[in-house]
Amino acid sequence: MKVHGKPTRAVWLEPDACAVGIIDQTRLPHAFVTARLETLDEAAHAIRAMRVRGAPLIGATAAYGVWLALRADASDAALTRALAVLGETRPTAVNLHWALEEMRRVLTPLRPVERVEAAKRRAAELCDEDVAINRALGEHGLKLLEAAWEKKGRKGRLEVLTHCNAGWLATVDFGTALSPIYLAHDAGLPVHVWVDETRPRNQGSQLTAWELGQHGVPHTVIADNVGGHLMQHGQVDLCIVGTDRTTAQGDVANKIGTYLKALAAKDNGVPFYVALPSPTIDWRLRDGVREIPIEQRDGSELSDVTGRLASGEVATVRVTPEGSPSANYAFDVTPARLVTALITERGVCPASEAGLRSLFPERAEVRP
Amino acid sequence: MKVHGKPTRAVWLEPDACAVGIIDQTRLPHAFVTARLETLDEAAHAIRAMRVRGAPLIGATAAYGVWLALRADASDAALTRALAVLGETRPTAVNLHWALEEMRRVLTPLRPVERVEAAKRRAAELCDEDVAINRALGEHGLKLLEAAWEKKGRKGRLEVLTHCNAGWLATVDFGTALSPIYLAHDAGLPVHVWVDETRPRNQGSQLTAWELGQHGVPHTVIADNVGGHLMQHGQVDLCIVGTDRTTAQGDVANKIGTYLKALAAKDNGVPFYVALPSPTIDWRLRDGVREIPIEQRDGSELSDVTGRLASGEVATVRVTPEGSPSANYAFDVTPARLVTALITERGVCPASEAGLRSLFPERAEVRP
Repeated sequence: MKVHGKPTRAVWLEPDACAVGIIDQTRLPHAFVTARLETLDEAAHAIRAMRVRGAPLIGATAAYGVWLALRADASDAALTRALAVLGETRPTAVNLHWALEEMRRVLTPLRPVERVEAAKRRAAELCDEDVAINRALGEHGLKLLEAAWEKKGRKGRLEVLTHCNAGWLATVDFGTALSPIYLAHDAGLPVHVWVDETRPRNQGSQLTAWELGQHGVPHTVIADNVGGHLMQHGQVDLCIVGTDRTTAQGDVANKIGTYLKALAAKDNGVPFYVALPSPTIDWRLRDGVREIPIEQRDGSELSDVTGRLASGEVATVRVTPEGSPSANYAFDVTPARLVTALITERGVCPASEAGLRSLFPERAEVRP
Repeated sequence: MKVHGKPTRAVWLEPDACAVGIIDQTRLPHAFVTARLETLDEAAHAIRAMRVRGAPLIGATAAYGVWLALRADASDAALTRALAVLGETRPTAVNLHWALEEMRRVLTPLRPVERVEAAKRRAAELCDEDVAINRALGEHGLKLLEAAWEKKGRKGRLEVLTHCNAGWLATVDFGTALSPIYLAHDAGLPVHVWVDETRPRNQGSQLTAWELGQHGVPHTVIADNVGGHLMQHGQVDLCIVGTDRTTAQGDVANKIGTYLKALAAKDNGVPFYVALPSPTIDWRLRDGVREIPIEQRDGSELSDVTGRLASGEVATVRVTPEGSPSANYAFDVTPARLVTALITERGVCPASEAGLRSLFPERAEVRP
């Protein structure tokens, strides 16, 4: 989508074809800074340090990371090591493993001399496939937004609540949860987005707000605590969130706090949609609460907040008292019973095993 | 409770009996600073600027504010004006209006010359009554904690989740939600408190964490998004929160986000208790979601975060991008159906009209 009016992707092959370009998302929204990744370690670090984040973008960056690794050493051992190093950068995102598995499948049968070019090509294809998936997903989601707008009598604004950042910054382009919103906005629907701040990393107030603002979509940042109140008072027409991992029965692991919003939506009869490109489906899993490992990150993400001083300088302040520990769980699992429907690149389906298999019949035989 | 090992109240008459002392809570947890209030305007400002906050403490400070006003002018007109100025400082807290109504009742029949001393005396009594109420409430709540500890087989820690600050800093002493926790801790129960950060003003991570730490109660700060995940995984034995206003049918208005935690508690079979001194009951109201006005505060409370720089200096950073608006609803309403029980100074009762009237039979005839 647009940055300073110019169409931009979240990961790209640099013009000299010697490095991978990314937006350093840890610098947003206060500075728009791009970075060149030239080695496996730089790619792994970019993922681990969340300079790139969001399940689809992690997958795409990891695929390019394999290319960067093979440029230095295209042996079997180096390929195995690259896949292992990249695979350990983030524990929850299933796309990461999906993308790495795809690279392994394509590259393993090749001779080392062929691997570098093949890795670059396949990584670029994965990026284009991600864009195509997200656009398709957006078009299916757009129909739900249009229907909600009609149901509302085309009055006021269509009020959508989202959590975390499932926008184009979390993917290669378009985003997942935000893809229908961008398409609706571009089609002239008066969408307004309630943007959950998304503590502790503030992906909502920093990334979602920034990308919606850059593209001109009206939005308002709210504390994560606010969504329930808005829903109680009829100020949310529907929720759309992304997911980092979806089980075969439709449970979704997404940014911590998603579960609480889904509970509020259920309690107030507000539709709660989850937008997911099919690579986030982990067909081996069923019960998400029991089976999906939840990443715990450093407590400093909660205790320390980074922002811009009045001087313009970016600084970090400690919020909590010395001696008070913090716990930092990065994701939670929203059970399928709280999800109105799943929006995929193949269409919309109930959040259930039957629903998912109706759209992905080729998976019908896959059993845990 | 204790500050630097020394028993301390949250509001007091200064030793020279010429001013009211408060802790400037906007400076916590980074600095422990007390302030003298000498005029009506200083008292009103302290409440409005949240140097004192928490429903019971607002009421106590407002009562002293009437005394400060009458010292300058004890006429009928001045009394009326003082009650009006103080009554407009915060819209949601019912204690404020209760305390001011009590001052009006006591002072109006008196001659101006008698009012100053009577106002000081009644304000001091209200403070002592608040302490007595909170201690009684704590003892009733302690029984619930002891029962939960027995039920758990006296193993590990008793895990309690709380939201916002309903500790002694929100009252004159002991606190409401934290009163049973302090008593349990002092009685040797191994209580551990999950402290919700409580965005946007961080009363949890800044005030609750500070006061628990000062008193030596083990605790961990978590993002507001985390409680649902902890409850899904059996890591919370019970929740206790305070309330700013309780309706006759047991709906509770408390800090924004309380409703989301109550939904999660219900969904996971975790008891959800609300601790309330009876002055927070608004017997005129029934349906809290419809009838309780919710204060909207400035969006800067969300976009700007204050903390301590590495240099030790306290600074404010802007988190959100320029041009992204914020909305800031300060409270939400948790319907009685989500509340396991109410803990009052007279005992524990179901969150219902029948429950409340069983403890407060003298209110049986009061109808909206």
